[in-house]
Parts: sequence; C-alpha cells; structure tokens
Amino acid sequence: MERAIQIGLLGLGTVGTGVASIIKQHQETLSHQIGRPIEIKRAFVKDLHKSREPWLSSLELTEDVNAIIQDPSIDVVIEVMGGIDETYQYVERALKEKKHVITANKDLMAEYGSTLLHKANDLHCDLFYEASVAGGIPIIRTITDGLSADKLTKIMGIVNGTTNYMLTKMTEEKRTFDDVLDEAQTLGYAEADPTADVDGLDAARKMAILATLAFSTQVYISDVSVKGIRTVSDIDLSYCERFGYTMKLIGLAQKDEGQLEVRVEPTLLPNTHPLANVHNEYNAVLVEGEAMGESMYYGPGAGSLPTATAVVSDLVTVAKNIQRRVHGMSYQTPMFQTTFKQENEIQSPYFIRLHVYDRAGTFAAITTLFAQHDVSFERLIQLPLADQQEQAEVVLITHTTTVAIIKELVAKLKQLEAVADVASYYRVEQKG
Amino acid sequence: MERAIQIGLLGLGTVGTGVASIIKQHQETLSHQIGRPIEIKRAFVKDLHKSREPWLSSLELTEDVNAIIQDPSIDVVIEVMGGIDETYQYVERALKEKKHVITANKDLMAEYGSTLLHKANDLHCDLFYEASVAGGIPIIRTITDGLSADKLTKIMGIVNGTTNYMLTKMTEEKRTFDDVLDEAQTLGYAEADPTADVDGLDAARKMAILATLAFSTQVYISDVSVKGIRTVSDIDLSYCERFGYTMKLIGLAQKDEGQLEVRVEPTLLPNTHPLANVHNEYNAVLVEGEAMGESMYYGPGAGSLPTATAVVSDLVTVAKNIQRRVHGMSYQTPMFQTTFKQENEIQSPYFIRLHVYDRAGTFAAITTLFAQHDVSFERLIQLPLADQQEQAEVVLITHTTTVAIIKELVAKLKQLEAVADVASYYRVEQKG
Repeated sequence: MERAIQIGLLGLGTVGTGVASIIKQHQETLSHQIGRPIEIKRAFVKDLHKSREPWLSSLELTEDVNAIIQDPSIDVVIEVMGGIDETYQYVERALKEKKHVITANKDLMAEYGSTLLHKANDLHCDLFYEASVAGGIPIIRTITDGLSADKLTKIMGIVNGTTNYMLTKMTEEKRTFDDVLDEAQTLGYAEADPTADVDGLDAARKMAILATLAFSTQVYISDVSVKGIRTVSDIDLSYCERFGYTMKLIGLAQKDEGQLEVRVEPTLLPNTHPLANVHNEYNAVLVEGEAMGESMYYGPGAGSLPTATAVVSDLVTVAKNIQRRVHGMSYQTPMFQTTFKQENEIQSPYFIRLHVYDRAGTFAAITTLFAQHDVSFERLIQLPLADQQEQAEVVLITHTTTVAIIKELVAKLKQLEAVADVASYYRVEQKG
Repeated sequence: MERAIQIGLLGLGTVGTGVASIIKQHQETLSHQIGRPIEIKRAFVKDLHKSREPWLSSLELTEDVNAIIQDPSIDVVIEVMGGIDETYQYVERALKEKKHVITANKDLMAEYGSTLLHKANDLHCDLFYEASVAGGIPIIRTITDGLSADKLTKIMGIVNGTTNYMLTKMTEEKRTFDDVLDEAQTLGYAEADPTADVDGLDAARKMAILATLAFSTQVYISDVSVKGIRTVSDIDLSYCERFGYTMKLIGLAQKDEGQLEVRVEPTLLPNTHPLANVHNEYNAVLVEGEAMGESMYYGPGAGSLPTATAVVSDLVTVAKNIQRRVHGMSYQTPMFQTTFKQENEIQSPYFIRLHVYDRAGTFAAITTLFAQHDVSFERLIQLPLADQQEQAEVVLITHTTTVAIIKELVAKLKQLEAVADVASYYRVEQKG
C-alpha cells in the first residue's frame, strides 16, 4: 500500500476532535474505501497547553500555522477553527501551496465561497464544504451530484438547529422565548451571544450557499431577506396551533421565470407539511425539481460528530480524487445572471395579529383598509384581551398578497385610531 | 468543445422516454456541468412500429441490439428495458465492449449486481444504478459518498410505492385490500400481476441492494426474510389506529455485533416515527450511523420522470468521469463476511390478533401459554366479534421477544381449544 495521505488540521475544538476520533476509529474501512491509509500529521491550535482529551496526546500540535500550510508532506488541510478573515488567509495560502482544503465553516463560505472556489479551481485543488450546511445531512452533495440532472425550482429548509429547538420547546411546552433561550444557553445549544442564530443570520448564510449551488448563480448574504424569531411569542404559537399550523424558521429560495427570491423568516406551515414535523435540533431541507418533484433530506443539523462525519466524507472524496489524480474539477462557475424579485413580486398569504380598541366602528375601519389594499381573509378571529380592558385581539390569515402590500398595510394599520398595535405578522405557507 | 458523449438506450418505455426528454430539455445545463454535450445516438426497441410520442421521431431506433452494443462511437449504454436474463447478457456484452453502463433495473441488480460490478471493475468501466432503488431519492449515492465516513448500523425504509399507496388508502379511507388493489391497478400504480409488489419481493430486492452497500457485505435476495401485505386487513388497521400506530411495509437491515438481519414485513410504527408520516406512493429511507445518528431521505419512489432524473444524474457522473479519464473505480469488493442472525436472535415486540371462544377459562388458557413462553403484554384489548356469536376478538401487543418464540407461540395458540383462529401478527417498532 502507498504512503498514508497526510492531513493537517486547523483547529482542534469539538469538531476537530470528532474528525480525529472518526479517522482513528474507522481507519480500516476508510483505507479500504480509499486504497491508502489516512493520517493526521499535525494540528494547529491557539494554545498548546489547553487541557485536551488524553487520547489526543499522540497527536502532534503546533501554534505555528506555517507548520501545516508550508509542510510539503501534507496533502489535505481540514479547516475547523472557525472565524472569517484570518481563516480566509490560511485557506488561501494552503490552496496556493497546492493543498486540498475541506472546511466546515459556513461564515467563511457564505462570505468568500465563490472567491475560494475560483482559486481552488485555478490551482487544481479540491475545496469541499459539505459540513458547512445542515451538519450531517449530505445536502450539498445531493444538490451537486444526486439532483444534477434536474432543474431545481425551490429549496425550502430548516437549517438552524438552535432556533428549531427553541420553537419546538416554545410550542410543545407553551413557554416564552426568553425562558427557552435561557435553557438553550445552559444546555449549550445556543451561544452566549445568540444573535447569529435567533436573528436568522446563520440560516441566511446557509441559504446563500444552497441557493448559489441550486440555481447556478451567485447569491450573497446581502441578497437574502432575513427576519429572526425574536418577535415570535407564545401567543402567536397558540394561534398557530388553533389554526392547524406549526411555526418554523424557514429558509426559502425559489426561482420562477428566471427571477429569484431568497428569504429567511418565521413561517406558518400547515401541520401536514413535511417540514412541520421536523422537531428539536433537527434540520431538514426540502428540494423541488421540475422532473423529480419534491424530495426531503432530514438529519442532525449540528453536533460535533455529525459535522465531523460530513468533514470525513469530504475527506474520502478528496482522497479518492488524489488516488485518481483528478482534482479541482468540482467547481462550476455560476452560469446564470441573477435578477431578484422585488417585494411587489413576492407572493404569499400572511398571518397578522392586531390589538384593537373594542368599540363601534373598529371592525369597519380595519376591513375597509384591507379592502382598499385588495386583501381578503382566509380566516379571522376576535377575542377579548385578558390584560387590557376595552381592547380586543384580532388574528387573521389573508389570502395570497405581496410582501409590499403587507408592509404598507401593516404601516397603515398602525396609524388607524381603532388599532392599538400590530403585535406581529408572518408569512404563511399554503401547501400542506 | 469536444464531440458529444454518445448514448445508446436499451429500451424506450416510460423511463427511456423520460431520459430522452430530460437530455433534450436540459441540454444546456448538462453540457455546462460536464463540459461536453450529450447525445442519444440510437435506441434499441422491441418493435419499431409501436406508436410513440411525435417528438421522439428524431431519435434513431433499432431492433438490433448489436447496433448499440457494437457501435464503437457509443460511450455509455443506458439500460431501461427491464427483465433479467436477456438484459444481463446485453449489459455484460456492453461492458466487454468497454461501454459504461447505467441501469434502473433493481431485478437485475439484486440478482447479478455483484457479478456485474466485478466485471465492470475488471474492465475499467463505470456501472451505476441509482435509479434501481427508491426512484428519485439519491440514496445509493448518499450511502456510498455522503455517509462514507460513518459506520452504518441500520437502514429502515419504505421502498415500495405501490404498497405504501395501498396501505395509505386502506388506512385513510377504511377500505379493504382487494378494493384498493383494484383501484391501484386501474390507476396504473399496481401491475396486472401485483405479486412482486404486494408480496414484498420488490422491496426485498431493494433491501438486498441497500444492505450490500451499507454493510460492505454480500446480501442476496434469498437472505432477506419477506412477508407481504396480503394478510393486512382493514380490521388490523383500525386496531393500529386505536393503539397510536401506523402500519407500513418496512424494509429493515441492521447489524449489531457483526451479525446482520434483513427483513421486509408489515410493521406497526408509532405515529411519531418519521416513517409513519410518509404517505401515498412516496418512499423514504432512514439511515442510522454511529457518528451521524439518524438521517432520513424522502421523495417520489417511482414514476417515469423521477426515475429518469436518477438515471441522468448517474449519466452526469459517468460523463464527468469520462472527461477526467477515470472510470471503474467506484466499486468496492465487499469487505466483510456476513453472518445472519437466527430467528431466536431477532428481537422485537409483536402485535397479535386472535379470535377466541367467549367462555370460562379461555383467558386463563391463553395467558398461561404466553407466560410459559415468557412473553408479557404491553397492552391487551378484548371485544365481542360482531359477526361470530360466542366468539371474541383479543388484540395485544407484546413486550420484546424473539421471532422464534412468536412463531412457536402462534403455532401453539392455533392448537388451543379456546382459540378459533390467529387472525394476524406483525412486528412492532418501539422507538417513535
């Protein structure tokens, strides 16, 4: 058997440790698949003296990144250190040193993915990033290979585990956002600074990566319209339940007539929708293609072992490419120019929850405003507000309208004398 | 751009027509991905004069299979004609002529898969068969590539669309097996001879293919224990509903302590189980890996366009391999020797439905027999039988026992004077 394929690890946190552990434990099956053994030559860490699991002591560590990047015997660099700008420099330099790179870093890929893939291509190196989206679900591979023959029309997914865990707990246990966030932080499901998760930025990065791939067009994170789950209250969720819907933070990318729409926002799904039954920290991605129709991919969205598994699967592909002496042929330059839909072209029904003054004329004023905007109701419910005398809560689901109209309508509702407040509004997915 | 990659089609039925249609309609994106155009040079058909869709008239047809197999300008043979022995000859000859082969034929692959993959490997040709299992779901690719780093422990799936459609209709519309089979045949979901579907053979073939791949060991169809859905009555389904279960035809392949078990049988799934919510003609495969945990792949199991999409996805891979001048490296010889579990090693709870004589001592006789076999009940219900005076129906779910014990118990129950009949018994999946 030939010499082992040599790996340099950038980072040895939970995912890095998981990668090392899988390579160690599955050495036999891995070398069987590849035809050569795999060996971690060295790992770059920030602090040599940090305490680590004892079995890692056989691993050579370094605080000097050049000991990885410039070591000519290292074939593949695995980046699991996180971060954006410094990491970008390391990855770029590794590629220039003709090393293949595998990364689990969605922030890096959402920001510099196209640039790096271009460079990798020019330098005849592989750059794989399966673990950057939806942890253990091999969704990138599925889109690039498995569905390569189809014209994809829609990607719809739950791609952030933290917020899905939170919404599941809020729904099932009728608890508030703050309460559940506290628990998620204690359990380590949410970061001390939860912004990237709860404000939808993490999901937006993943949707930018998926949309770029699925539609062969360059989608930046700034192209994604984002709304997080901070505004979602237990009251909203109880109305969802009453109406037969489940609230999820949905990433949606769809293309029709050449125009693209990429959004991340809390969305009401009919309970019969395949994504409505994806709970806790699980992720799922639903893909719609012209020929295939609908298919769905479901699995753990994060966690060190699922993520490490995705990294090592990429490693198997890279190692096979090394064996076959073919690399850097995986990247396709985006083929199409993108036009994004304007808000007056994006259509959907909406859920709206209002607080109104409970007096004569209120209903007429509200319904007149809706009629003026040509928005009709699919259903409507009015209930007294327990904690506010003389006020009532009106909750409704509209028929299909546009984002532009809903925004204007919400602004005008707020100005109405009869309306105390527009408590919330969310997109509604129609099809079950 | 280089000359087009030339395809020879064996068969031009619904899947073949779908393949031709996708290659025509997606020519632009396909050649972008591959770097060369793709062209169907010729199609082998049994009858030149059969009426076909008008747009197919531009396609060159032949009744002579040698015009495909021996044409040196043809690079890839796509086999979508079905059948086993004659087809095997054609595929083998095509490989010998150094043609890459793509097949959608599960019967062929379950029977001759290993032989053909071996030959392809020796001849440095590619042989791909994604479409042979679960139509549009790229499950073979997911197992071989996406989950290549993990040690798989379990594959559990709904892999036959016809029976899933039938069980869905029987459950939702409270109809009988015969009634729903009639409808499925009228709609074209079931064949005139439905044996392969309803007796579980089709599912067994697919499970043999999946288990071979997932556990890197040779599993033949004769290794699969098979029970179809013919015995499933509307009465069984109404008890499932009452107990919070959904009945599905489940293919199960699992390995523990080096021992394998591969089964296809009607199984009661808790309603919260991910596979319990896969309805109509849809397929889904749940994969469990040591590191990954559970992931699930869901999509249309059959249909000419999803199947054709899977074939063309394989074609994209083969065409890329041609471009990179690497072929025939996809096959791994099974690595492990297999030991199959014996029936006294296969454990599960069971659902049993009995007709008993409604008189003193009946219950004691039955429960004594269960106690003698060390089988206890998770739940039990007794109801009078509407159409049989002096008889009652006893329905129960046992705690975990073995297949061997259940078979013995059922045989002995039938001999009891107190028991008129053992109407049915099925495996129960515990975990939701």
